[in-house]
Amino acid sequence: MSKNKKNFRPKARRVKGFEDRSGAVLRSEQQLLGAAASVFDAHGFEPLATPSFEYADALGKFLPDEERPNEGVFALEDDDRQWMALRYDHTAPLARFVAQNYDGLAKPFRRYAMGSVWRNEKPGPGRFREFIQIDADTVGSKNPAADAEMILLAAEVMRAIPAISSNFTININDRRLLDVLLTDIGIAQNEAGDLQKGIVVRAIDKLDRLGERGVELLLGEGRKDESGDFTKGAGLSPADIETVLRFTRTGCDQRTDTLSALQGLLGTSESASSALNELKLIDNLLEKSGINSQQARFEPSIVRGLGYYTGPVFEADITLQTTDDKGRPVRFGSVGGGGRYDGLVARFKGVEVPATGFSFGISRLAAMLAGFASKDEHHNGPVVVLALEPEHMDSYFAMASELRANGIRAEVYMGTSGMKAQMKYADKRNAPAVVIVGEDERKAGTVTVKNLALGSKMSAEITDNARWRAERPAQTTDKRDQLLSMVKAVF
Amino acid sequence: MSKNKKNFRPKARRVKGFEDRSGAVLRSEQQLLGAAASVFDAHGFEPLATPSFEYADALGKFLPDEERPNEGVFALEDDDRQWMALRYDHTAPLARFVAQNYDGLAKPFRRYAMGSVWRNEKPGPGRFREFIQIDADTVGSKNPAADAEMILLAAEVMRAIPAISSNFTININDRRLLDVLLTDIGIAQNEAGDLQKGIVVRAIDKLDRLGERGVELLLGEGRKDESGDFTKGAGLSPADIETVLRFTRTGCDQRTDTLSALQGLLGTSESASSALNELKLIDNLLEKSGINSQQARFEPSIVRGLGYYTGPVFEADITLQTTDDKGRPVRFGSVGGGGRYDGLVARFKGVEVPATGFSFGISRLAAMLAGFASKDEHHNGPVVVLALEPEHMDSYFAMASELRANGIRAEVYMGTSGMKAQMKYADKRNAPAVVIVGEDERKAGTVTVKNLALGSKMSAEITDNARWRAERPAQTTDKRDQLLSMVKAVF
Repeated sequence: MSKNKKNFRPKARRVKGFEDRSGAVLRSEQQLLGAAASVFDAHGFEPLATPSFEYADALGKFLPDEERPNEGVFALEDDDRQWMALRYDHTAPLARFVAQNYDGLAKPFRRYAMGSVWRNEKPGPGRFREFIQIDADTVGSKNPAADAEMILLAAEVMRAIPAISSNFTININDRRLLDVLLTDIGIAQNEAGDLQKGIVVRAIDKLDRLGERGVELLLGEGRKDESGDFTKGAGLSPADIETVLRFTRTGCDQRTDTLSALQGLLGTSESASSALNELKLIDNLLEKSGINSQQARFEPSIVRGLGYYTGPVFEADITLQTTDDKGRPVRFGSVGGGGRYDGLVARFKGVEVPATGFSFGISRLAAMLAGFASKDEHHNGPVVVLALEPEHMDSYFAMASELRANGIRAEVYMGTSGMKAQMKYADKRNAPAVVIVGEDERKAGTVTVKNLALGSKMSAEITDNARWRAERPAQTTDKRDQLLSMVKAVF
Repeated sequence: MSKNKKNFRPKARRVKGFEDRSGAVLRSEQQLLGAAASVFDAHGFEPLATPSFEYADALGKFLPDEERPNEGVFALEDDDRQWMALRYDHTAPLARFVAQNYDGLAKPFRRYAMGSVWRNEKPGPGRFREFIQIDADTVGSKNPAADAEMILLAAEVMRAIPAISSNFTININDRRLLDVLLTDIGIAQNEAGDLQKGIVVRAIDKLDRLGERGVELLLGEGRKDESGDFTKGAGLSPADIETVLRFTRTGCDQRTDTLSALQGLLGTSESASSALNELKLIDNLLEKSGINSQQARFEPSIVRGLGYYTGPVFEADITLQTTDDKGRPVRFGSVGGGGRYDGLVARFKGVEVPATGFSFGISRLAAMLAGFASKDEHHNGPVVVLALEPEHMDSYFAMASELRANGIRAEVYMGTSGMKAQMKYADKRNAPAVVIVGEDERKAGTVTVKNLALGSKMSAEITDNARWRAERPAQTTDKRDQLLSMVKAVF
């Protein structure tokens, strides 16, 4: 920074990869958070808020993007030389909280949490480094019913959002199925094998984006992307690659058909049967709860990118067709997901504390819904009371206050410009009406209310501009005590 | 971090100076934010959310605690070697936003913003490094009516919080009055003088904590605190120190009396008159809006710590008497404040964009209000449906779902323990009732509902433990289709 404070003028620029949000987007965020929080609350979850920062060693290294500085997090060193980092999700802080407060908690511990999470990713179009998630988790239960409940919660949240309603599919898989498969094809049960498994999981996670051919390269020797960067692959043989890809293709329209197909592929080893039996239990609870195979599907190509999952995983996809900036139809895709992570609390405790959760990503969805809503945004601003005589601000304050006391959003023009600028201001604020008391009105004890919604409609329809101006039909003047009823008539 | 991932076990510990919040505190936060947002919204302010991070040069250096690393902020270097820092308030990011989007905004620009702010302070009891603020600001107006509106907003927000109601005072001052005084006693109008003024402002800001004697030292040569650390003073002469202290003592019970006293002390120079005239305008608008001198007071000892204020400043104090951990009465003190900062956008633009705002600190107040509310927290948890036969989870899910569909918060026990542990769980969750269907009930087509609130009340009253157990009066059994009415009877 410049030492010459007086003359230093910083450039006003938002930090790269972050966004400013306003109006419709924020209202959308609030609605989505409210809808999800109500569902979680009704299901008995309690709110919990942990700090934005955790010690870096407590957060662990579970992000898929390990090549970034600090492995994808925003980290800094505290006074006492301990590294702290902004949370990249709500799950890792929950694990720390549970481990720290274990003895005092009712178990299973059920909480929901909402707020920003931060990822130190390469900024790109539509990729933000801060976004909002709301999560529910059940910690301290290995009961597969807890996993089924998470999938039900996801379905209920989707249904609670009018714009989504029934346009969603929840894709379910189980990490253990892939483990069984990878053990079968001879991947070692050691640290080297774990690294290789990690590469396979991240490769499958890219099926959507790269297609089978790209994933095939990542399962084999590796892949060079468009920019020329080379990503090292898992080094599987062609036959093993085909086995893995066949596994990702086992998803059928009916959940029970997928279970049969998986049984055929994975055989009847104890570990395979154990995972498949839990999926059967989940299928049964979903079926009995009225969630059919269109709403929740077994889909073995879904793996979830985060490194801490150990059992059932799922992803909620919005199937609503939307359009991009250029009007082309796009699939919205995943808005959240979750799964079982039995090892995360064990990192601290040394004993296993099984857990399962659901995380719902608010930011991208809010932006899309705000796009739908923006056409209704006209004339939804405050009523603006013009400030035409500075020495009579108190009477303008009184009028705005009277309107607000009657439930009408209202403000006094707070600038120092003249009438024309004040009318322009009211237009720009989407004001439904302006209240005008100039010298004439003041002396006559009257007030003029101009209906801006009607005014803009009429000026669009009427071509005889002069006549319209002379008659000013969108404007009425009456006694001061009629203010409220005149303004009410505008709505 | 240890390279040996497998054996590394981090200690579960919250980062120093941060807090975990749950239940009553979070509900309190939501209520306070909701109350303030409604007031701001009714007054025509629009919501805006800026990112947590700003470039460090854009945030500027306005925090009082300049001796801390990074001058009191959490900062880190981005990939492109630009320093970014977490916001320490909502005002500096607003200035950046306005400067960046100036031409497209309706002016005056009126927005409200809420969320965490971060201060890299030395952690101490009750001092947190992350806390929640909600702000309203009017940018682009030098109209003193905009300052008066901010004070009115503060009063309306206080009144909208039932636990506070009329137990508040808003203390108002004007930075320019102190400027006039300091110019009068010969402090130079240059960079050295500005530094000296800064020391004077920060000294006066500590009146509450250090008393007149401590402030006297800080206005003079300096002060050694309890820990032996020495803070360099402003270096004023004893006569000038007395003049400054006399200024801080001019507050009277009536606003108009304080104005007269200030006029006497500061004389009739143009700069003194200009500031005093604006305070007169503010007094008039407050008076006409029904805010008397008990609710809003002129108080020259109030300066506000932040360095960017240029005109009227104010602070909202809660006068409600509360008690500390040991039951001793404490004054709650300031919950927020604000003022005029005409230079903040000019830092970017080079032209002055006058602005004024109000910031309301949520976190400490929410903790206090949650303390009041906690006695009502018994039996406000979810109804717990016990899971006694794992193979019948679907019927437990159906019962909880039926209760939720009728507006009753309900969950199925998600663990894998037996009945005794499940009853303990329900107690710990503050469940008002448990729903019991074991083998007997299932075969008979019945359901048992146990009223835990009544049960704990009776077990406290009744001494004949054996009789009470035999009769089990807090427990009823009826046909399965009576579940809803049995549970409703508990509330």
